[in-house]
Amino acid sequence: MAAERLKKQIQFILETDKIKNIFRMSKIHDGSRRENDAEHSWHLALMAFLLSEYSGEDIDILKVMKMCIIHDIVEIDAGDTFCYDAAAGLDKLEREQKAAKRIFGLLPEDQSTEFMELWQEFDAMETPEAKYAAALDRLQPVFLNYLNKGGTWQEHNVTKKQVLQRIRHIEKAAPKLWEFVIRLIEDAVSKGFLAEK
Amino acid sequence: MAAERLKKQIQFILETDKIKNIFRMSKIHDGSRRENDAEHSWHLALMAFLLSEYSGEDIDILKVMKMCIIHDIVEIDAGDTFCYDAAAGLDKLEREQKAAKRIFGLLPEDQSTEFMELWQEFDAMETPEAKYAAALDRLQPVFLNYLNKGGTWQEHNVTKKQVLQRIRHIEKAAPKLWEFVIRLIEDAVSKGFLAEK
Repeated sequence: MAAERLKKQIQFILETDKIKNIFRMSKIHDGSRRENDAEHSWHLALMAFLLSEYSGEDIDILKVMKMCIIHDIVEIDAGDTFCYDAAAGLDKLEREQKAAKRIFGLLPEDQSTEFMELWQEFDAMETPEAKYAAALDRLQPVFLNYLNKGGTWQEHNVTKKQVLQRIRHIEKAAPKLWEFVIRLIEDAVSKGFLAEK
Repeated sequence: MAAERLKKQIQFILETDKIKNIFRMSKIHDGSRRENDAEHSWHLALMAFLLSEYSGEDIDILKVMKMCIIHDIVEIDAGDTFCYDAAAGLDKLEREQKAAKRIFGLLPEDQSTEFMELWQEFDAMETPEAKYAAALDRLQPVFLNYLNKGGTWQEHNVTKKQVLQRIRHIEKAAPKLWEFVIRLIEDAVSKGFLAEK
């Protein structure tokens, strides 16, 4: 039984290597290529403990880090859905639930349940940990687009209003980070990286 | 003061994006390209909590995950040192210490100290957390080389003896994982992925 358990865990580790081939819209700092989900998740996990003092509520940092590490694993099957693509967003939940069932289903039952619950909790954005993790998930692409002098904002004619709508969740989840990002967005507009309208 | 603190933290987050351009020897599962440090660190952080039951000693999982996330940040300046390259290994410590001083030095003082200490603890491989994290760091490339039917083992004429010497640390740090990886290596030899001598 013990050997069977470890075999399932290793199988999951090998399967999730595929996340390194799931590319997001955002480009890395030098604009040379798009960022993948493993890199994005690494960055969120780093931000999770580095910026924990800014969470609006008390949080279990270990839980947040686990969420950051696993939150995009479903995209191995479901693909990355661009946040400003309303049409693709329509069946996102269905695609991702099917993916979660298959991929987390590779794990031993107790861990399969734990991973499924962590992912669902992240996705629901209701608990303090999920709210904080979601704020980081909104914040990180803003940094990359800023470093790229507009990046995907320019490629897809995204306006300041759309960005603010996308990231407004940060305001309550991490008020100090919200103040900072608002100034960054104003600066991006003034530099011509992001369209005012 | 508070604004200055956050500015330093964000500066660090932006600077560390460069880790996505630091490529290791190991290739990802499909052999299409080399893995980078962000992806590798993501994988270790996932393994850290997924496989924690196999640590030979009681561990603080949060601390292990932090170590996994930051352990290769020094390579932004120092570059990746191939573990079977004895010559490059000679000045590795010096290069990495200089890098740690510069990069962790971007952070506010308390976090600069915390990150430096975490990295030094990981590197010293003496505490339970560092021993377990180092075991994962040895284990993960074995999986990638196995998935690549030999990968860097074949490219660099690495033998079974060299691999066992490189990963022997796993034996005490995580005995059950050692048993598993020994069988995996025997299987790799029998399949011609790794040279017996």
